[in-house]
Amino acid sequence: MKIAETLEEARETLRLLKGQDRPVVGLVPTMGFIHEGHLSLVRKCRKECTVSVVSVFVNPLQFGPAEDFADYPRDMERDVALLEKENVDLLFAPSVDVMYLPDSSTMVTERKLSSVLCGAARPGHFDGVCTVVLKLYNIVEPDKMYFGEKDYQQLSIIRRMMKDLDVPVEIVGCPIIREADGLAKSSRNIYLTAEERKDACAINEALNEAENLFRDGERKTCVLEYVVLSRLLQTSAVKPEYVEVRDAVTLEKIEEITRPSVIAVAARVGKARLIDNRVLR
Amino acid sequence: MKIAETLEEARETLRLLKGQDRPVVGLVPTMGFIHEGHLSLVRKCRKECTVSVVSVFVNPLQFGPAEDFADYPRDMERDVALLEKENVDLLFAPSVDVMYLPDSSTMVTERKLSSVLCGAARPGHFDGVCTVVLKLYNIVEPDKMYFGEKDYQQLSIIRRMMKDLDVPVEIVGCPIIREADGLAKSSRNIYLTAEERKDACAINEALNEAENLFRDGERKTCVLEYVVLSRLLQTSAVKPEYVEVRDAVTLEKIEEITRPSVIAVAARVGKARLIDNRVLR
Repeated sequence: MKIAETLEEARETLRLLKGQDRPVVGLVPTMGFIHEGHLSLVRKCRKECTVSVVSVFVNPLQFGPAEDFADYPRDMERDVALLEKENVDLLFAPSVDVMYLPDSSTMVTERKLSSVLCGAARPGHFDGVCTVVLKLYNIVEPDKMYFGEKDYQQLSIIRRMMKDLDVPVEIVGCPIIREADGLAKSSRNIYLTAEERKDACAINEALNEAENLFRDGERKTCVLEYVVLSRLLQTSAVKPEYVEVRDAVTLEKIEEITRPSVIAVAARVGKARLIDNRVLR
Repeated sequence: MKIAETLEEARETLRLLKGQDRPVVGLVPTMGFIHEGHLSLVRKCRKECTVSVVSVFVNPLQFGPAEDFADYPRDMERDVALLEKENVDLLFAPSVDVMYLPDSSTMVTERKLSSVLCGAARPGHFDGVCTVVLKLYNIVEPDKMYFGEKDYQQLSIIRRMMKDLDVPVEIVGCPIIREADGLAKSSRNIYLTAEERKDACAINEALNEAENLFRDGERKTCVLEYVVLSRLLQTSAVKPEYVEVRDAVTLEKIEEITRPSVIAVAARVGKARLIDNRVLR
């Protein structure tokens, strides 16, 4: 009998006992209405994995009762065409009934990183995210999962959850993809009128201003937050929800930047709630 | 590109894409201080699986602050010897530090079955159980996991959790193993004095009485509960905590037995908190 006292020993012994030599499987979980942001994840997955899987599932569990679950844009035909073109191996597109049994009663919750930023504004949102991401992991059993850095807090929470639960998966974060005018790609951009869309660009511009200040040596987070906020308040359509500089890993509030940090922004623009961020190192 | 809309389609396609043909791995999670109850699980696992793994880990997360975590009996040397004799392939015996990072913040919670019986008396207990069982699953990645029916509620909750989170594992429940005098085997029986031990046998005897009544046609749950309770109250050492007849799957309270049910008992006997049950069908 082998005795393992660490995870590494246990996994290595089991790998030998199982004699596995299976291909690398990658999963890109999405809520569909595929745009260039998603496609950048798919392309990275295709490049790094032998089997690439994309899931399309608008997850009711991560929407609050007053949020846009019913209105969230969907276009499966277009999604299928786009993913076919990328040579994806498997599209997993379950219905809500397939994903959630009526008597389901189990939730996965991350209790620290989830309590701030979007978690404060959207109670239960990240419980829904954690639960569905773990379910998708268990269904597909990928070696790697791909997430966009636009949803920076989500990415941090998923990394934390996977580590805490010892899930043997590599979480790959991919850079934000932007429109030509700088607005971060998002399925929800479709909610914007032409006017709102113009104002929404201020979010990226404000983050640019803060990043430039940081590059010029500014380290006080209140100054950087103020710069972003005052730029946003110059628009008529953008209603900021939060502008915060936080530790890039723990998401803890900081007053002076001495380690990798992130400026995170959430704002309402017309019907849309948009988020964006900039990592500062 | 294949498109899967159900879990079965997704898993079958992935199985083919991965081209796996790996052996069946079984895991018996225990808190150690191995007794015949554990060994019956190990033997079943050995019979049904090609690779058998046992974990020994006294999980602090499932003990309340006033409970017996520090005093819980441990004897690793004896456990190793017993498991060697059963030809177990791998013993996973992590320390608390290996299992829980200091900044860990993720919990798995089952919210329905966990709210009654032991869950009501031990707040947070089943969150700790769910979290550690899912972690052990992720570390070992077994095809089957073995649990004793003595911890009936725990077994029900784990089944529910695995189903809700789409974990591709078979949960195998194994019958209660008893001492010669009928007391259900438990690592905590060691807490009992000779006197208490004699009284503790009343739990099994009371369950026998109720089962006999049920076999004779009694279907009213209050009558069966009364029979058990009054038998326990005849002892001096047994302090019943609950005696309840509940639906065998949902653990919902029932008044008349029309479907598989379970009489569940928890009682304090001296320093020990003991549980036992009897399934009625």
